[in-house]
Amino acid sequence: MAVLGAAGRMGSTTTAAVRAADGLELVAELGEGDDVAALTGVADVAIDFTVPEVTEANVHALLDAGVHAVVGTTGWDAAALGRVRAHASTRPDVGVLIAPNFALSAVLAMRFASVAARYFASAEVVEMHHPRKLDAPSGTAVHTAHGIAAARAEAGLGAMPDATATSLPGARGADVDGVNVHSLRLAGLVAHEQIFLSNPGELLTIRTDSFDRVSFMPGVLLAVREVAARPGVHVGLDTYLDL
Amino acid sequence: MAVLGAAGRMGSTTTAAVRAADGLELVAELGEGDDVAALTGVADVAIDFTVPEVTEANVHALLDAGVHAVVGTTGWDAAALGRVRAHASTRPDVGVLIAPNFALSAVLAMRFASVAARYFASAEVVEMHHPRKLDAPSGTAVHTAHGIAAARAEAGLGAMPDATATSLPGARGADVDGVNVHSLRLAGLVAHEQIFLSNPGELLTIRTDSFDRVSFMPGVLLAVREVAARPGVHVGLDTYLDL
Amino acid sequence: MAVLGAAGRMGSTTTAAVRAADGLELVAELGEGDDVAALTGVADVAIDFTVPEVTEANVHALLDAGVHAVVGTTGWDAAALGRVRAHASTRPDVGVLIAPNFALSAVLAMRFASVAARYFASAEVVEMHHPRKLDAPSGTAVHTAHGIAAARAEAGLGAMPDATATSLPGARGADVDGVNVHSLRLAGLVAHEQIFLSNPGELLTIRTDSFDRVSFMPGVLLAVREVAARPGVHVGLDTYLDL
Amino acid sequence: MAVLGAAGRMGSTTTAAVRAADGLELVAELGEGDDVAALTGVADVAIDFTVPEVTEANVHALLDAGVHAVVGTTGWDAAALGRVRAHASTRPDVGVLIAPNFALSAVLAMRFASVAARYFASAEVVEMHHPRKLDAPSGTAVHTAHGIAAARAEAGLGAMPDATATSLPGARGADVDGVNVHSLRLAGLVAHEQIFLSNPGELLTIRTDSFDRVSFMPGVLLAVREVAARPGVHVGLDTYLDL
Repeated sequence: MAVLGAAGRMGSTTTAAVRAADGLELVAELGEGDDVAALTGVADVAIDFTVPEVTEANVHALLDAGVHAVVGTTGWDAAALGRVRAHASTRPDVGVLIAPNFALSAVLAMRFASVAARYFASAEVVEMHHPRKLDAPSGTAVHTAHGIAAARAEAGLGAMPDATATSLPGARGADVDGVNVHSLRLAGLVAHEQIFLSNPGELLTIRTDSFDRVSFMPGVLLAVREVAARPGVHVGLDTYLDL
Repeated sequence: MAVLGAAGRMGSTTTAAVRAADGLELVAELGEGDDVAALTGVADVAIDFTVPEVTEANVHALLDAGVHAVVGTTGWDAAALGRVRAHASTRPDVGVLIAPNFALSAVLAMRFASVAARYFASAEVVEMHHPRKLDAPSGTAVHTAHGIAAARAEAGLGAMPDATATSLPGARGADVDGVNVHSLRLAGLVAHEQIFLSNPGELLTIRTDSFDRVSFMPGVLLAVREVAARPGVHVGLDTYLDL
Repeated sequence: MAVLGAAGRMGSTTTAAVRAADGLELVAELGEGDDVAALTGVADVAIDFTVPEVTEANVHALLDAGVHAVVGTTGWDAAALGRVRAHASTRPDVGVLIAPNFALSAVLAMRFASVAARYFASAEVVEMHHPRKLDAPSGTAVHTAHGIAAARAEAGLGAMPDATATSLPGARGADVDGVNVHSLRLAGLVAHEQIFLSNPGELLTIRTDSFDRVSFMPGVLLAVREVAARPGVHVGLDTYLDL
Repeated sequence: MAVLGAAGRMGSTTTAAVRAADGLELVAELGEGDDVAALTGVADVAIDFTVPEVTEANVHALLDAGVHAVVGTTGWDAAALGRVRAHASTRPDVGVLIAPNFALSAVLAMRFASVAARYFASAEVVEMHHPRKLDAPSGTAVHTAHGIAAARAEAGLGAMPDATATSLPGARGADVDGVNVHSLRLAGLVAHEQIFLSNPGELLTIRTDSFDRVSFMPGVLLAVREVAARPGVHVGLDTYLDL
């Protein structure tokens, strides 16, 4: 086990979690400028919590080194993914997981929302974060709304019922693929999401609360333990879960 | 006890509730065109669940008849209220309660929100209603936000923290006096509100769920039983509660 | 489409829902003493919302008549199920669904809880019902707890962490297969359940609220539309869902 | 400002909060064996986050020194309180606040629950804590239940409706003065409480979530700023709030 970006916030939380975990051994902590190629034959798995500017280069280097890669760094676009997939096809023994979110509760909530969406007349998403957050809605909420919209489209459901005739600007939230998303910014919170799905007489609510960065660690450790058994490039921790 | 607008949705629910209540006797059910003056000496208390067009005239007639009035009809503005107050000052023995909302949980939630607001860094309001509702946000949510804003101003609190730099239109809700309000429309729901108040490390949530019109009846009966003991014009059921 | 037990609470709600549904035609409403055999060649599907004493006989008669059966009546035990399975094996063209719960939100919540349980350190169940309910915990909550316990066992998880040393009797709820279940009885509620699943730093909550008997109708209609395409005996609406 | 027990968990969180607060100056941090009398003329206010064994002696010494005292240490019984009240009556210029809980959301929730309880047919309490907690229910939940029970008794409400006839042991929770209290223990949680109050057709829920020890600091700072203006002995942070 090696950690790339070991001095960062996620990296240092990860090194602590790996040290405390049964059956995992931390053999290297890499920072800015360290040589990924040096991991060849030293580490079986590497976790990348670096920055968008270097993460793709790191994954190519890990593929060259024959080291399985678990990547939590954000900023991947389709072009970068395509280059990694092409490279990985030449190393069919190596596993790569690129996951924007390691919080199991968030990953499961998104999956459950998209599974359930086809069975409900209405669905809306409320996300709550600390007020230092720069963007609204959160990426997780947008991703959740996309999943709901895709499921509704596949099931042949039309637009949701909504008779709103007069509204203050913004009251009905942001429209993401026809799903209304609402963003709250509250001092002291971390990352929280509520998904509401309803039919006449019933309401299904799926809620996730992340209080602390350690909430990502069960997902990170699960990925580290599985990546060697899943060759090829996978995107999203949900691809590793038995759902 | 008399019910004005007895054939309407709220009126008929009220007549049923009065009949089932201990110590209350229903002596008259009035509909469109019936003469309110006929209640003189017949009823001690009258409940008005009519329509905005006639409710003020009803209250004047009840004052003339010396009948205490509990009014649930909406649409009162400052001018109408002023005229009723002037009239009532000539009948100091008669009580009038004008209440836009008889749901005890909603009335208490608004009061609690305004009491608590001065102690928290952040506050936002989420309301959820059936999708046949025409306006957004709901009147209750707007009223709740006004109460929060007034309490914050009185306590000398400034704007809430919010670093949002990029946002989809509507994501951050409607701005009501500096309090963000979010409106969800979900098939099968009735009337629901969540008020979030937070500080570093803590979140206080006050939630009300109204599933059915009968939820207004405890508040209506409380008002009917109290109105004779509270002469003068009172606005809002909270003025009757021991808070 | 025929409804057996059409005069009962669920039966009458069902006949109304079938009449309002696109593409379904109600051809018969049967009550006590009516002859199920008369449905031969008349109805393609029948819904049974009768009573435990007659439901098994009804299903055998429907199998004889070649009518697909959707059964919402409770009280089925293993012996009765075995007899129906044996009979159904002689009519491989007929579908039978026996479902104790048609509320989609409750059925999905149970499934999601058992899918998620293997990924969380702790899980507990809180159910809330009207105070006229005779048993505690509810059958749905017990079923949910069984699903969580089975998933934890399959994943090799041991007992949940709990250092409780001193406790008032009952504070920690009922132990159902090692999962703590808590029952609240609150005036005015209908049927509600909250499932809590947690790890360090995160909490996943799945909540269902049923406000009204009509909440069962989307599930009933889904079953009616699917039963002909699913020959054999199936137990639980979840067997019909794409999960 | 002085902090007694400055090296402890709460003490060190408090010294950090005082240092970061506008208008407060930290002049002394005392630990085990340090002499409280030395604060005479040095500090105007002292906060005691020590241990039950020494807190009463500290308060007597602070009264002798003419230093206002804010006490967060638990373990006070009626006898100790009586001795401090007697002593304080000889120092009418000095304020003493003894508060078992400085979390504003928890203090407000308890107050709101007891204010609301008289207006609802049913009330139950659910508390959720980390699984290292030794006792169940939590002191806060027991205190909440006492407040609800007292309010119901004062309003002349009888026992809550509950038709439970068959129950698994513990399902209905612990009976605290006739109020059912349910304790959940979930890995990763800190301190959380939900209070449910219901009537036909409506549910009022008051929920508090404490994610972190810093949640006590707004209440501690409020007390420190107010104590000099409130001579005499006060018990409970709610006595300082405008409720």
